[in-house]
Amino acid sequence: MKVGFIGLGIMGRPMALNLVRAGFRLVVHNRSRQVVDALAAAGARGAGSPKEVAAASDVVITMLPDSPDVEQVVLGTDGLIDGIRFGTLLVDMSTINPLVSRKVGGAMAARGAAMLDAPVSGGEKGAIDGTLSIMVGGESRDVERARPLFDVMGRTVTHMGPLGSGGFTKLANQIIVAVNLSAIGEALVLGARSGVDPEKMIQALSGGMAASRCLELKGGKILSGDFEPGFKIDLHAKDLRLVRQTADALGVAIPTTALVEQYLTALRTRGKGGEDHSAIIRFFEDLAGIEVRNGSGGGY
Amino acid sequence: MKVGFIGLGIMGRPMALNLVRAGFRLVVHNRSRQVVDALAAAGARGAGSPKEVAAASDVVITMLPDSPDVEQVVLGTDGLIDGIRFGTLLVDMSTINPLVSRKVGGAMAARGAAMLDAPVSGGEKGAIDGTLSIMVGGESRDVERARPLFDVMGRTVTHMGPLGSGGFTKLANQIIVAVNLSAIGEALVLGARSGVDPEKMIQALSGGMAASRCLELKGGKILSGDFEPGFKIDLHAKDLRLVRQTADALGVAIPTTALVEQYLTALRTRGKGGEDHSAIIRFFEDLAGIEVRNGSGGGY
Amino acid sequence: MKVGFIGLGIMGRPMALNLVRAGFRLVVHNRSRQVVDALAAAGARGAGSPKEVAAASDVVITMLPDSPDVEQVVLGTDGLIDGIRFGTLLVDMSTINPLVSRKVGGAMAARGAAMLDAPVSGGEKGAIDGTLSIMVGGESRDVERARPLFDVMGRTVTHMGPLGSGGFTKLANQIIVAVNLSAIGEALVLGARSGVDPEKMIQALSGGMAASRCLELKGGKILSGDFEPGFKIDLHAKDLRLVRQTADALGVAIPTTALVEQYLTALRTRGKGGEDHSAIIRFFEDLAGIEVRNGSGGGY
Amino acid sequence: MKVGFIGLGIMGRPMALNLVRAGFRLVVHNRSRQVVDALAAAGARGAGSPKEVAAASDVVITMLPDSPDVEQVVLGTDGLIDGIRFGTLLVDMSTINPLVSRKVGGAMAARGAAMLDAPVSGGEKGAIDGTLSIMVGGESRDVERARPLFDVMGRTVTHMGPLGSGGFTKLANQIIVAVNLSAIGEALVLGARSGVDPEKMIQALSGGMAASRCLELKGGKILSGDFEPGFKIDLHAKDLRLVRQTADALGVAIPTTALVEQYLTALRTRGKGGEDHSAIIRFFEDLAGIEVRNGSGGGY
Repeated sequence: MKVGFIGLGIMGRPMALNLVRAGFRLVVHNRSRQVVDALAAAGARGAGSPKEVAAASDVVITMLPDSPDVEQVVLGTDGLIDGIRFGTLLVDMSTINPLVSRKVGGAMAARGAAMLDAPVSGGEKGAIDGTLSIMVGGESRDVERARPLFDVMGRTVTHMGPLGSGGFTKLANQIIVAVNLSAIGEALVLGARSGVDPEKMIQALSGGMAASRCLELKGGKILSGDFEPGFKIDLHAKDLRLVRQTADALGVAIPTTALVEQYLTALRTRGKGGEDHSAIIRFFEDLAGIEVRNGSGGGY
Repeated sequence: MKVGFIGLGIMGRPMALNLVRAGFRLVVHNRSRQVVDALAAAGARGAGSPKEVAAASDVVITMLPDSPDVEQVVLGTDGLIDGIRFGTLLVDMSTINPLVSRKVGGAMAARGAAMLDAPVSGGEKGAIDGTLSIMVGGESRDVERARPLFDVMGRTVTHMGPLGSGGFTKLANQIIVAVNLSAIGEALVLGARSGVDPEKMIQALSGGMAASRCLELKGGKILSGDFEPGFKIDLHAKDLRLVRQTADALGVAIPTTALVEQYLTALRTRGKGGEDHSAIIRFFEDLAGIEVRNGSGGGY
Repeated sequence: MKVGFIGLGIMGRPMALNLVRAGFRLVVHNRSRQVVDALAAAGARGAGSPKEVAAASDVVITMLPDSPDVEQVVLGTDGLIDGIRFGTLLVDMSTINPLVSRKVGGAMAARGAAMLDAPVSGGEKGAIDGTLSIMVGGESRDVERARPLFDVMGRTVTHMGPLGSGGFTKLANQIIVAVNLSAIGEALVLGARSGVDPEKMIQALSGGMAASRCLELKGGKILSGDFEPGFKIDLHAKDLRLVRQTADALGVAIPTTALVEQYLTALRTRGKGGEDHSAIIRFFEDLAGIEVRNGSGGGY
Repeated sequence: MKVGFIGLGIMGRPMALNLVRAGFRLVVHNRSRQVVDALAAAGARGAGSPKEVAAASDVVITMLPDSPDVEQVVLGTDGLIDGIRFGTLLVDMSTINPLVSRKVGGAMAARGAAMLDAPVSGGEKGAIDGTLSIMVGGESRDVERARPLFDVMGRTVTHMGPLGSGGFTKLANQIIVAVNLSAIGEALVLGARSGVDPEKMIQALSGGMAASRCLELKGGKILSGDFEPGFKIDLHAKDLRLVRQTADALGVAIPTTALVEQYLTALRTRGKGGEDHSAIIRFFEDLAGIEVRNGSGGGY
């Protein structure tokens, strides 16, 4: 199986590297040439355009920043679609608007090619370690074709339903994480302002109905005030924009998420877009004039 | 140790019963006499007023609906405070405004009596099984005095800090649970409207960063549409009112929680106040004209 | 007609003074004695308690900060209700919870006395000039009895319906003003950040569908940055608390107002509670890191 | 002066017709041919593409639904930009993203052509009567060139600043109107639920600080329940999407507007998108289970 890989950013690069190391023959392409050279040094072959990648591959993986990038790479000038053959499989692992996935998939189908949308969670660390969680939408037979590749890049692979289902699941995930981080923010700021020790509070909350993966993974960052990403606020803001676009198109009102999205806007304007999304708590700290980690200002 | 118990409702009755069964001598009081008689049949002694309970007890436990009830029982006519002696310990296990706890505690202290606030989580089932989680605020020596009683009623006992800290922790817990249930609601309605199978989606979300105790415990109710409580929307609404009053008094802005509180108001107006709080999802289902459990209207 | 007046604060004092000057015989009471002496100098007679005021009056006007104050003055120790006679009329001009008005009115009725709720708008200036707008709830015959007094204190008197209707109307007014000031804030901050001259923008907006009394009266304050009250954020926050309590009790969800109330909380925490309510715009200025009045940071 | 006109919809058609009647020589283009024929009957000349219009005009007016339409018509295949000459003036009267206006203006400038953005308010009636309010962004000399045309189409012309300023002003207007209509909705539903006569309430509110053009123009529709547009919810939703996109790009958080936008989404999902935007009140009526116009369910 000849494998194409387009998009060698923070996530794409280690994912591609793992595939090369696992013995797959890779043809890679990236807007900036430098990364391609690095991959070539590891054994991949570089290609000058998406079209060229497609012409040389049975399966093409894309890992790109946003919906317009995927549209451009697949449908634009010298795009993938100009190089695919009958039977080529496109596996888009970017987090994009699932309605765009369906549009692109339709264009592929019209040329006899198939598509999966397979966004991931697990971050840079998961990409490097090959432990990503992969949510896949598309036909079962295509999921099976891609499985050897998924098995190298991730630990859990869930087939969610038809094309777009992977993306919808990822967006649902991003809603819950952003809103829950906001809830944790409001709860801890209220707790700190009331004088309760934040560490004890996180411990007590973790023992009950308020327990969550977010509290478990991010409680430490909040206590230490070390907001090194992790998953950047900028990226979560982008994902919530996708959520909103999708919800608009489907006629689903999401008032809580819409409000939380505005907190991210304010944080980005204050220059916090590069911090981990657990820094959402800063929004509520600012409103209350207190920092949870040292309780300054608290003690009612 | 002679133990008084005031407030024999859905929670208080089984808690008192467990204490009697564990061998404690109980003096009990309740607004309605019937329940007192039932407890008397189990071995407790009835008393005609809070004052009378206090006069006969070393430790008095209160388990009442709301802040004004505690104020009334402790500070009102024939109240606890009229019967206490130097050294009596009041353990209020109600979920009330922690600022009221501190006011009541101050009145107790002026008479040489001590107070703990010790709200619980775990619901009726936890009360019956003696597996409540108890969050305690007050002095360490008083926590130790009450520990034999806590050990009968609950499984985990966390000393959070000074008087009021138990209540603040409980309120923080109630913020996170209500807001997270709203997030789950928006996520699942968007997923259902997009045509993804809700059961698969809950499974996938549970495997990643969106995982939470709420999703774990309430996912089944949402899928089945069986919203038998559990913890009633009416009670969660009451707790969010306490959250808001407390946050107002401390100058902490909680925009997400304030918005979620309005969803509960709308649900109560539609006659859903008696349903489990996981029925918060109904608010978003109504807005989108779809039911997650059967996906009617979905399939974009 | 012998007139009692209780509550001689920023509003009550000039209102009472206008009545004295118009020739009414006034018996006045206030928690702090100093103001009573000032009124006595102008010709009013001081009284030691609400009860004493009631005993000496045919009509009693109250102008107090909040619902508990009215309950205390009417129903508390040495309260109005202990001094009233059959046929006395209570005219409460405070802005309080209309459901409390109805409760107090019920207690009055049980003693053969009548009550109007008659909150005002127009601020200190309106009180001094005798140009208040008065929204009245109660029986028509009682409105007629009070009309000679209203005519001295205000310019427009509107009979809204039964007891409580005056208060409900005032609360509706406070919703619209707070939310509209927030809308103006978001619009002007977006405009300023985009580089449009704020003065021109206010002028253009005033010419179309966005025009409002708020924009007309407060545009100048926003442009000058002079947020001297006027009507304090602290007081508007108190009124929104009444709105929420009332809406909770009636089962009316008010998500926009609930969100706006949180802006006021944040502003008060930042020490802006004493500024005019047009300073709500500061909340959005802070989020966007820009000041509308000088456009600093703008010019996209 | 030879005038081109592209976009002959509900607004564009009467605007073009007024220009023809005022004696201007018009070259018109529209996606659907039928309307072009109707204009031709009135004396205008039809053209097969935007390019052809541009080639035959000194000034080209565009009146299109949304940003992508303007981009397509100006920059797409056979677009305006392919037909313009040095010195041509483009007057875009659509309501679009002002950042897109600036992008398009930049492309025009690179070819020696100028651009104004000149969105309007006043609706179909204003377009027919030639009484639109026109908010213009661009260079003063270009505003002067276009003034004879503006004077035919509108009554007030305000020059707001550089290119884009017209659009930013229009968006600020749309924020205030949508949010104020929501405030009016919450206030009147609370009032109705409390039993106050809605007509009296609107009258009383109109006399004070809550007064606004919205209340004045839309109060009657709300009382009668006749939500014939006027300005459709669908169009206001589109404008709020532009607001959000613009605010995102400029880093301005607009939490109130973001929340209100979700009300529109819910109303559109319920099939109310074709109703006048004053039907926003339906959102709050549904939450409270009451209709303001007949007070059903009210009377606390």
